[in-house]
Amino acid sequence: MTSDKNSNLSLFFEPRSIAVFGSMREPQGEGLTVIRNMLNFGFAGSIYPISRSATQASGLKAYPTVNDVDGPIDLAIVVTPPTTVLPIIDECGQKGIKAAIVATEGFAETGRDGATLQRHLVETARRYGMRLLGPNTLGVLSTDYGLVTAPYSMGHNKPPSGGITYCSQTGFLTFGVHPVKDIGYPISKICDFGNKCDVNELDLLPYLADDPSTNVICMHLEDIKNGQRFIEVARQAVARKPVLILKPGRTEAGARAASSHTGSLAGDDQVHENAFRQAGVIRLRTWREFWDIPKALSLQPLPKGNRIAIVTATGGAGVMLSDAAAEFGLVPATFAAATRSQLGKLSPRLGNNPVDVGPMMSVREFPFSVYEDVVPAILSDPNVDCLTAVCHLGPPILKVFTGLAPLISKIGKPVTVLGYGIDLPEMQESVRQMESMGLPTYLDLETSVKALGVSAAYSRIRARMEEDAR
Amino acid sequence: MTSDKNSNLSLFFEPRSIAVFGSMREPQGEGLTVIRNMLNFGFAGSIYPISRSATQASGLKAYPTVNDVDGPIDLAIVVTPPTTVLPIIDECGQKGIKAAIVATEGFAETGRDGATLQRHLVETARRYGMRLLGPNTLGVLSTDYGLVTAPYSMGHNKPPSGGITYCSQTGFLTFGVHPVKDIGYPISKICDFGNKCDVNELDLLPYLADDPSTNVICMHLEDIKNGQRFIEVARQAVARKPVLILKPGRTEAGARAASSHTGSLAGDDQVHENAFRQAGVIRLRTWREFWDIPKALSLQPLPKGNRIAIVTATGGAGVMLSDAAAEFGLVPATFAAATRSQLGKLSPRLGNNPVDVGPMMSVREFPFSVYEDVVPAILSDPNVDCLTAVCHLGPPILKVFTGLAPLISKIGKPVTVLGYGIDLPEMQESVRQMESMGLPTYLDLETSVKALGVSAAYSRIRARMEEDAR
Repeated sequence: MTSDKNSNLSLFFEPRSIAVFGSMREPQGEGLTVIRNMLNFGFAGSIYPISRSATQASGLKAYPTVNDVDGPIDLAIVVTPPTTVLPIIDECGQKGIKAAIVATEGFAETGRDGATLQRHLVETARRYGMRLLGPNTLGVLSTDYGLVTAPYSMGHNKPPSGGITYCSQTGFLTFGVHPVKDIGYPISKICDFGNKCDVNELDLLPYLADDPSTNVICMHLEDIKNGQRFIEVARQAVARKPVLILKPGRTEAGARAASSHTGSLAGDDQVHENAFRQAGVIRLRTWREFWDIPKALSLQPLPKGNRIAIVTATGGAGVMLSDAAAEFGLVPATFAAATRSQLGKLSPRLGNNPVDVGPMMSVREFPFSVYEDVVPAILSDPNVDCLTAVCHLGPPILKVFTGLAPLISKIGKPVTVLGYGIDLPEMQESVRQMESMGLPTYLDLETSVKALGVSAAYSRIRARMEEDAR
Repeated sequence: MTSDKNSNLSLFFEPRSIAVFGSMREPQGEGLTVIRNMLNFGFAGSIYPISRSATQASGLKAYPTVNDVDGPIDLAIVVTPPTTVLPIIDECGQKGIKAAIVATEGFAETGRDGATLQRHLVETARRYGMRLLGPNTLGVLSTDYGLVTAPYSMGHNKPPSGGITYCSQTGFLTFGVHPVKDIGYPISKICDFGNKCDVNELDLLPYLADDPSTNVICMHLEDIKNGQRFIEVARQAVARKPVLILKPGRTEAGARAASSHTGSLAGDDQVHENAFRQAGVIRLRTWREFWDIPKALSLQPLPKGNRIAIVTATGGAGVMLSDAAAEFGLVPATFAAATRSQLGKLSPRLGNNPVDVGPMMSVREFPFSVYEDVVPAILSDPNVDCLTAVCHLGPPILKVFTGLAPLISKIGKPVTVLGYGIDLPEMQESVRQMESMGLPTYLDLETSVKALGVSAAYSRIRARMEEDAR
């Protein structure tokens, strides 16, 4: 049963052929926008525009109904007025389509009538063994397949391909309202659950646990459908890869707002805390954590422990990072005698942690070469589990880390970079280049160590799970 | 005595004439860099390069010693090797200069010898009644005067002029390592305390309390020199404008790192908490708070209470903001009957707080016009003290807020904006434009309401102080 469900789910993320229902009128027609987005993203499968009026759309032949299309169709994308959706789902069911994304708004989120209409959708889909995502969703994005289903113009804003899969119960935490391309997160898939009428977290967790191109699962959930089943599937996923969940409603005001947003019951938040702990899920608390923490887990290996080294060109940052590290469960590494003696040869004032390389930089002809000496020495210390390097972003440090990246990767301990500078576009370009070398780079101070704190927490959870299994 | 000290302090921020000591060798000479920065920033006073070898620097006539300069000099900027600094301070004292910024590194921060040299500096300066800032400092920046003293190339990165004054005990939280121009903070002054050999927070708090161009004081302090005196001067400043302080060393690891960075004693953090509470200082905890919170207090009026309204185009953001608002001391406003009825006329589904305008936007010809109807109605409600608006950044919303800004200003309650979008450069440009209309705009979700939480907290502190004074 589970594997059947999962094989249907792959139709949402790896379809070979797609039927698109929606206005094909130039230039803002929503069906046409969906098609244009996919062409821009390089979707390699077949796209069938379905339209009673148009004969072509964006250069593709259009068909009056799905029945006029020869051969099978994996996925339907529906973005038509609410009252037309039910007959379309029926038409798709007859054609044998097993997966549909209903982007259309105006269902359960609008009140009782919408909820009734939504229930009819689900009943119809079930009759045909069809899975439904949505309604009221931006749908999915799959970088490897060039798949994107949002009815908003995405231009060429395809994020870089990578291992993070995001799922969210609000479009606000997906690809329609965040500069995923400019910021450069390495993304495998994004899924907007929308109203969660059928496909939900209980489907996605096992699917993504199995998915070889996902190495970190990051979800935003406003409600959890079935607590016991959730703990079960989440725990199975956690045994294979990190599962990070942002669950708002921590406060009474937040819980009430969530209830009014999704119609879910505002429960006691302690129930969620307990469920996450039992499942080994790591709970995220802020918007920034949701976007910025996963990349460290996706790009870097897990630490064996929680002892952090901080290498910084500015002592002030070292102090603030020490506070943040402690608050996120990390402890300052005490370097081994051999490391201290090695650092002492470079400068008599080195050897403490945080390692303030600023003074050494100011007396070197090539200031940034300090990192070449210091980072490998510290990272190789058996008393160090992970490292954050603070550095001025720009061409000189990029050159240094181009040399260091393979060495860091060989040592096999996670590293994050906190970058600073005075030219924002240059800093952002540096972040993208550092991350293309596999080094997660932050412009937000506390997040650069918080990410390692979460890595260390997941490492502990995995170790405990493996022990329990023995 | 205090006013004497203060009048000397104004020489650091509003000098009419400056002597610059430092290498004048092209193109990277540090003295020359300082001069070039000031010319780029439009400093209108006289600049006197002091050099035994050069006859001119950046087109300005150079002088062998300050004694060769006719007329008085307000400020000396010294960025020469450590051993040369003492005779230069003596030379400046003889000339009658009453203020000097010693940018040079290599004093107390390097150990015992440096500390001795630093003590001699202070003794020499005191003999002449001269105040010293630093050593080991980037010095000051003063937007109104086009003054900038960093020996790093600043290009034309002058921040926009405004009411925030930042002081910091690390260059990392000043203008040398943060894109203050690109991000567009409205800044009056920035001061890097460096080693705090003489000028420190006890001087700056009274000076800035008096300074008409500063309306928010934001400081980073790693140590506090004199607890009792600090409480006194801070309280006097708080009675006139908000004082926000980021004091690291909250954790044992952070306190130890601070101690090793500045040589200060790692004290019990509870002492600091108590001092801040007694003084009415608001304590900041993160790098982002330091940079992003002050602009809301600087650009917007104080709220009368802590009841927040949230207007959002995306329900998901409303839920997360509700959590953050509660966690920062705000409570959701319950709208008055008249407001609910006014909102109800716009759409039967409005009236709850957060106000989700998303569904209304999707049925309007000009979606963003919804804000024109909703924001003034809610802000005028007597049960609402402050408001956060969540909107997609770009030309349409800029147009709407160009119309709304004067109205918001007239109502006199603080508003922040949380912006989102998919094109980062466009979003950042929108932030700058919104803020030039006086509307503090955030790309970080929680900070947009946290800023109002801090405003409300300061409003309460002021009210209590005024009551106590009666």
